[in-house]
Amino acid sequence: MMVQVTTTTRPRPVCILGLGLIGGSLLRDLAAAGREVFGYHRSPSTARSARKEGFEVDSNLKETLARAEETGALIVLAVPMPAVEGLLDAIAHETSTCGITDVVSVKTPVMDLVYDKGLEDRYVGGHPMAGTAQSGWKASQRGLFRGAAWVITFDHGYHPEARSVDELAEADQATLGEPGRAALSPTGRPEVSSRWLDVWSQVAQLADSVGAEAIPARVHVHDAMVARVSHLPHLLAAALAVVGDNGGALAFSLAAGSFRDGTRVAASSPQLVRAMLERNARALVGPVDEAIEILTDARERLSATPPDLEALADAGYRSRVRFDARSGRVQGSVSPVEVSSRPVLRLRPGAPGWIRTLVQAEGLGARIEVY
Amino acid sequence: MMVQVTTTTRPRPVCILGLGLIGGSLLRDLAAAGREVFGYHRSPSTARSARKEGFEVDSNLKETLARAEETGALIVLAVPMPAVEGLLDAIAHETSTCGITDVVSVKTPVMDLVYDKGLEDRYVGGHPMAGTAQSGWKASQRGLFRGAAWVITFDHGYHPEARSVDELAEADQATLGEPGRAALSPTGRPEVSSRWLDVWSQVAQLADSVGAEAIPARVHVHDAMVARVSHLPHLLAAALAVVGDNGGALAFSLAAGSFRDGTRVAASSPQLVRAMLERNARALVGPVDEAIEILTDARERLSATPPDLEALADAGYRSRVRFDARSGRVQGSVSPVEVSSRPVLRLRPGAPGWIRTLVQAEGLGARIEVY
Repeated sequence: MMVQVTTTTRPRPVCILGLGLIGGSLLRDLAAAGREVFGYHRSPSTARSARKEGFEVDSNLKETLARAEETGALIVLAVPMPAVEGLLDAIAHETSTCGITDVVSVKTPVMDLVYDKGLEDRYVGGHPMAGTAQSGWKASQRGLFRGAAWVITFDHGYHPEARSVDELAEADQATLGEPGRAALSPTGRPEVSSRWLDVWSQVAQLADSVGAEAIPARVHVHDAMVARVSHLPHLLAAALAVVGDNGGALAFSLAAGSFRDGTRVAASSPQLVRAMLERNARALVGPVDEAIEILTDARERLSATPPDLEALADAGYRSRVRFDARSGRVQGSVSPVEVSSRPVLRLRPGAPGWIRTLVQAEGLGARIEVY
Repeated sequence: MMVQVTTTTRPRPVCILGLGLIGGSLLRDLAAAGREVFGYHRSPSTARSARKEGFEVDSNLKETLARAEETGALIVLAVPMPAVEGLLDAIAHETSTCGITDVVSVKTPVMDLVYDKGLEDRYVGGHPMAGTAQSGWKASQRGLFRGAAWVITFDHGYHPEARSVDELAEADQATLGEPGRAALSPTGRPEVSSRWLDVWSQVAQLADSVGAEAIPARVHVHDAMVARVSHLPHLLAAALAVVGDNGGALAFSLAAGSFRDGTRVAASSPQLVRAMLERNARALVGPVDEAIEILTDARERLSATPPDLEALADAGYRSRVRFDARSGRVQGSVSPVEVSSRPVLRLRPGAPGWIRTLVQAEGLGARIEVY
């Protein structure tokens, strides 16, 4: 059955599991936006700290989930990947109706678990592209997501019949070049449930509530993109830090802005970085190969007589200028109104052709406005 | 003859040739510090702009150099490398006593020209490790050099007998493991002139006048270090920008802080970047090879089952933490007094053993205080 979900959908309460940098910042922003929000953190002392600031945070998971079920809350998994499976089991056991989303930076392993637990009809993946080098509740802050991309997955809506990540991949292969086929033929193919459409709308609303921009992307597409623009930067920063260090004390004494910026993310927790990169290993190999190829070519051109780096210097400059033009907020605007430089597509979840619009937005890196 | 140059040396006027980002910012800071400073810029309109702000700037090179000679000024070459040779010829023709320094980011090609023109007894190389992605007089600003490293070369003092960059390299090879041999044996080896000692002191004073920290380094050592911590970051930024761009519109839409920081210097003028990297090609190949090796190893470990990036994530983190501890200003100090984290060595130019102190400082990345 196709349902029409409009912006008049009553916002559900939000239940955040895990109050680190992302979960904690989300809690702060949602509360400030007047949304009903409560949370769980396994450490009683962190839960106490949050309560002292006036937030409804418990360290009892079962009670927290009972409240989520009673109030029809949207559950947000905001824990590191190793904790996701245990929480999904608890959610499956303690709740039967709540929508589920997450903020994990690699989406395939989460989707894998979601299928394992048979929760795909209640799950829509999320990933806010925001962070700092710090982590934990103490690093959480207001406004972290303002203007940031918040990826929202839609794989189950595109291929409702898939029952595993492998089946998803097969189905994607089968509809290659026919974006939105599944949703375009309402007869003859399984349709997505109104429950899942409602979860999708709630997650879009969640991103909007904290000033983020909802960018639709399928799980494997998301993972391929963040490998390029988030995980490769971490690898290059680590490599640069080590090569600089190889130069000894004088090298670090002379290092200035270019080295500082190029190694900034190497200051992040190495455990978190490692876990993120290893979980996206399959998608990361290709971009790493591209980087090695570019550097190997540059190395040859540096050894030539005369050395010639014109092509790489120009290409790097053009790409960076395109990035400035395409990403995030418009710089230097005189208007006090924040203007996004991302294109926008408007849609109504469940309306005919809406999945085609999502696929189109994915290709454009466009943000979605739900009407 | 050994002379003692003390801090009571009367500051000479400073004549800056070229008023781009570095030359212009130097002019502003020296004037603000009460130093007598005047300059030349080949574009009459830029010279007019500077005069309108109250600076003594001319677009007549011959007259500017005549004033430098009359007043015994220190001449600062602040032009891009291609313009250096012409200015050195003009300086050799129009002046006979002024000290000469420069701010060019690669030192071997400048030293090469200095020997060609027989000006080594009047020249001490300089390189302030400061800049922005912008260039030109309009980008010049006050305070650009505060706390920055300002490299000061001392090759001629170490090997006064050398008459070319090749002879320098041979002499360095001969004294390997015997730091300061040249200066330690005042008999039997040529000694550096009092004129050169005076120029060295003037350049150290120049750096001090604008709040920079004087870091001694020989020409080839400087070039090897900046290859690691300044030129490699530019190469990696260009490579990252291109790999990100290869992901299309969605990749840029999702790119956030790690990509923005990692590609920042790719926004610099590609002509300037290219010229800088190509001129230091010989020194840059090694660090590029190190980076390729690290990435190739990471690529293999990503393809392994299970993927394992522990070693690189840990090494990158440790190196970045060391960099934070060793470079620039101490972070988070509660004192309003700026404290440098660089070690300091005190010396008197020309005093026995002072060259040994410079070599020692070079190894430590230490700053020099002249007393």
